Amino acid sequence: MNTRKKVSIAVVKRLPRYYRYLYNLLNENVTRISSKELSINMGITASQIRQDLNCFGGFGQQGYGYNVQVLYNEIGNILGSNKNYQAIIIGAGNMGRALSNYRNFEKRGYEINGIFDIDTNLIGKKINGIVVMSIDEMNDFVRKNSTQIAILTVPHDNTKEVAERAAKAGIKALWNFSAIDLQIPDVVVENVHLSDSLMVLGYRLKEISEEDKFDV
Amino acid sequence: MNTRKKVSIAVVKRLPRYYRYLYNLLNENVTRISSKELSINMGITASQIRQDLNCFGGFGQQGYGYNVQVLYNEIGNILGSNKNYQAIIIGAGNMGRALSNYRNFEKRGYEINGIFDIDTNLIGKKINGIVVMSIDEMNDFVRKNSTQIAILTVPHDNTKEVAERAAKAGIKALWNFSAIDLQIPDVVVENVHLSDSLMVLGYRLKEISEEDKFDV
Repeated sequence: MNTRKKVSIAVVKRLPRYYRYLYNLLNENVTRISSKELSINMGITASQIRQDLNCFGGFGQQGYGYNVQVLYNEIGNILGSNKNYQAIIIGAGNMGRALSNYRNFEKRGYEINGIFDIDTNLIGKKINGIVVMSIDEMNDFVRKNSTQIAILTVPHDNTKEVAERAAKAGIKALWNFSAIDLQIPDVVVENVHLSDSLMVLGYRLKEISEEDKFDV
Repeated sequence: MNTRKKVSIAVVKRLPRYYRYLYNLLNENVTRISSKELSINMGITASQIRQDLNCFGGFGQQGYGYNVQVLYNEIGNILGSNKNYQAIIIGAGNMGRALSNYRNFEKRGYEINGIFDIDTNLIGKKINGIVVMSIDEMNDFVRKNSTQIAILTVPHDNTKEVAERAAKAGIKALWNFSAIDLQIPDVVVENVHLSDSLMVLGYRLKEISEEDKFDV
């Protein structure tokens, strides 16, 4: 029987931040922390933190707080960082190359094991030790390696077609860096909208500039 | 007197999504939309939408809904996309190149007008029509152009030093792609954590995999 509680995506989206923060605490040899301290340092209310972590059964103890290592491991497990997910990158342009080089992914439990492109000038070249393969080899590769995740860094116009091709090959999750929102049946998709974060920065910059003006 | 209401950052973070969605509606020649329709299509409750937009004075009319063009313009103004912000990229590696080529930024009101690096092999080369300059030229460039935003795509270990150098040059906002959280006095910083979104994807993949198991 499936007894797991459905956790809201808003909570899930906050978990990687806890995970990062706890990782830093571990590196500073902090062994335990209260929800109040977590709250102050992360800018989230203590009650929000307790509520978030309670979704997964707690982990905290009254009067003791949280054991940093235990909480770190548990959140890692919840997020699936113990799954040793393998991922391929489709699109060996600048973004694909930048991501293949992003050293944080392995720390989070993700391994890039294949890079694909259609450009014959790129096929056969090595990127961070991985030989770029033709997209025509993707089907066999995904089946042989049971790869579930594809990182899409192809030009805008090709995104949908390539995503559908990946889904047919057996890919179950797409991390999409093109500016269009993808929806593919039976495939989970995270659409990365880099400009969103830039616009938040622009808003905050506008805010401080206006404060300066009012201060005069 | 400053009569502006302080808007919570949670609301601000949702605005770019409205902005993107409204942009798509405009492209489909949709001229008006109710909060209910917005709600269904965006997966946000109608009351949340009304609440979000009320922070800035509304824009909707009972029984009519929202004028898409007006709402799009207003949200754009709130986010500062009418400010014609100029930004420099520091770090001409793969990520810097990928971002300099990201055609969405201009659509959102941001122009990349300079790229800097310390690598003498890159200095003088052109990336998307912009000549890579030495970081030693950054000070003069930022002052001359009154550039306020810097996009940081330098290696992890150099991030803090480069960020401080940019702040000294007069940069007021940093969009930081390195994996470390930056804090620089009097400078607004948006730290981009790409792995966070990958981990959310991993969580959702784990969820559907476990559902499959329970379905058997």
